[in-house]
Amino acid sequence: MCQAIGRTLWAIAEGYIPGHSHGPSPQLESHETVCILNTGELEAHLRITVFFADREPAGPYRLTVPARRTRHIRFNQFEVPEPLARDTDYASVIESDVPVVVQHTRLDSRQAALSIMSTIAFAGG
Amino acid sequence: MCQAIGRTLWAIAEGYIPGHSHGPSPQLESHETVCILNTGELEAHLRITVFFADREPAGPYRLTVPARRTRHIRFNQFEVPEPLARDTDYASVIESDVPVVVQHTRLDSRQAALSIMSTIAFAGG
Amino acid sequence: MCQAIGRTLWAIAEGYIPGHSHGPSPQLESHETVCILNTGELEAHLRITVFFADREPAGPYRLTVPARRTRHIRFNQFEVPEPLARDTDYASVIESDVPVVVQHTRLDSRQAALSIMSTIAFAGG
Amino acid sequence: MCQAIGRTLWAIAEGYIPGHSHGPSPQLESHETVCILNTGELEAHLRITVFFADREPAGPYRLTVPARRTRHIRFNQFEVPEPLARDTDYASVIESDVPVVVQHTRLDSRQAALSIMSTIAFAGG
Repeated sequence: MCQAIGRTLWAIAEGYIPGHSHGPSPQLESHETVCILNTGELEAHLRITVFFADREPAGPYRLTVPARRTRHIRFNQFEVPEPLARDTDYASVIESDVPVVVQHTRLDSRQAALSIMSTIAFAGG
Repeated sequence: MCQAIGRTLWAIAEGYIPGHSHGPSPQLESHETVCILNTGELEAHLRITVFFADREPAGPYRLTVPARRTRHIRFNQFEVPEPLARDTDYASVIESDVPVVVQHTRLDSRQAALSIMSTIAFAGG
Repeated sequence: MCQAIGRTLWAIAEGYIPGHSHGPSPQLESHETVCILNTGELEAHLRITVFFADREPAGPYRLTVPARRTRHIRFNQFEVPEPLARDTDYASVIESDVPVVVQHTRLDSRQAALSIMSTIAFAGG
Repeated sequence: MCQAIGRTLWAIAEGYIPGHSHGPSPQLESHETVCILNTGELEAHLRITVFFADREPAGPYRLTVPARRTRHIRFNQFEVPEPLARDTDYASVIESDVPVVVQHTRLDSRQAALSIMSTIAFAGG
């Protein structure tokens, strides 16, 4: 398995980092995650741009995913060029120089029991 | 990032606004959301039509999403031409004059702890 | 909006009707739902075939969805040619004579607070 | 219904087996599942490769799905060539010699009430 699977442009229209959590951090802290799988033989260089309702986009946030590796990155860990506000609607676009697969997940622990959701991202190109 | 990503026709076959909630409104009020991402340089003009089990469709509900912005719109906030009934099955079609990306989310807080779900919408054209 | 959107062949690889529930029936009874949207001008005639781990498929279950209507059908309501067992893995294929959009949802209320999940089905043709 | 529906290459970028559970095993034990539907007349022979953040991939895990059957396989049941660690990010690629449909589900029961999520996998080929 060394074939590069996926696409080079992905979009996730939903994004929201709950401002509260219930349970031990970091595992059960409320978070949104972008899961990236790079099955190929080349390191993937990614640029993530974050869109908002009422201001210009933030980013790009730069990441690398080594060959034959996966990275599950929490949006609340983004720091450069700026951290993301909590309790704020956003969306994201992921650009890669090699094909990758992108899946989106949220864990929400604002109330007494956590809830999780997931969807494949939109493959734009 | 100023490329218009996505499609101009989307469909969401599931829709249901729970009639009860458990937790402070509006954040933890039960709701269904359509998340729209417009990555392009042109304002997007949308028409949302809502389908039911036993009556003619409602709408169109008209929305705009500015260039390089995202909007996460709750179906329970639709007012014109008519609000949507609670505890009623529905589905929706989203038409846009420029490409956008559409994702569907429900937060259900009818019982003691919320639950969330999400899926990419069906890209029809 | 009278264009027929979607596909005529869909598949859902996941299926499981929990044997227990917590909360008033039918709204909060554990269930799996297939949501079908028919945006077109012709009535849709559907055949649903259900696959199992260790026996021949069941069905076809026959349904109609009128023009410009949606139907959200619970698998636990299937009766003819046979009801579906609880606590049993299954999968399903939906065939339609006109294009429709199919989405899959489960509400699981086996424990003290419900959980929901949803995904677009696989568009096979 | 004896047509082979689906694709022969699928990817799931998200994977995580929670290390704790709340509720009777095996039904309510935290788990990730890959649901495979083989609608065709030929037995499907699958190879699943698992990718990680910081080590070489594991596998292939070999499975068969008989003709006209579905199998819902929990990643925590993988044993040969090696079991999967708990509380560790992973991703997976599923290769089949005949077309199948793949859906991904997680049940998380780390807290007092379970949560479930699901998405269609990415169809790579």
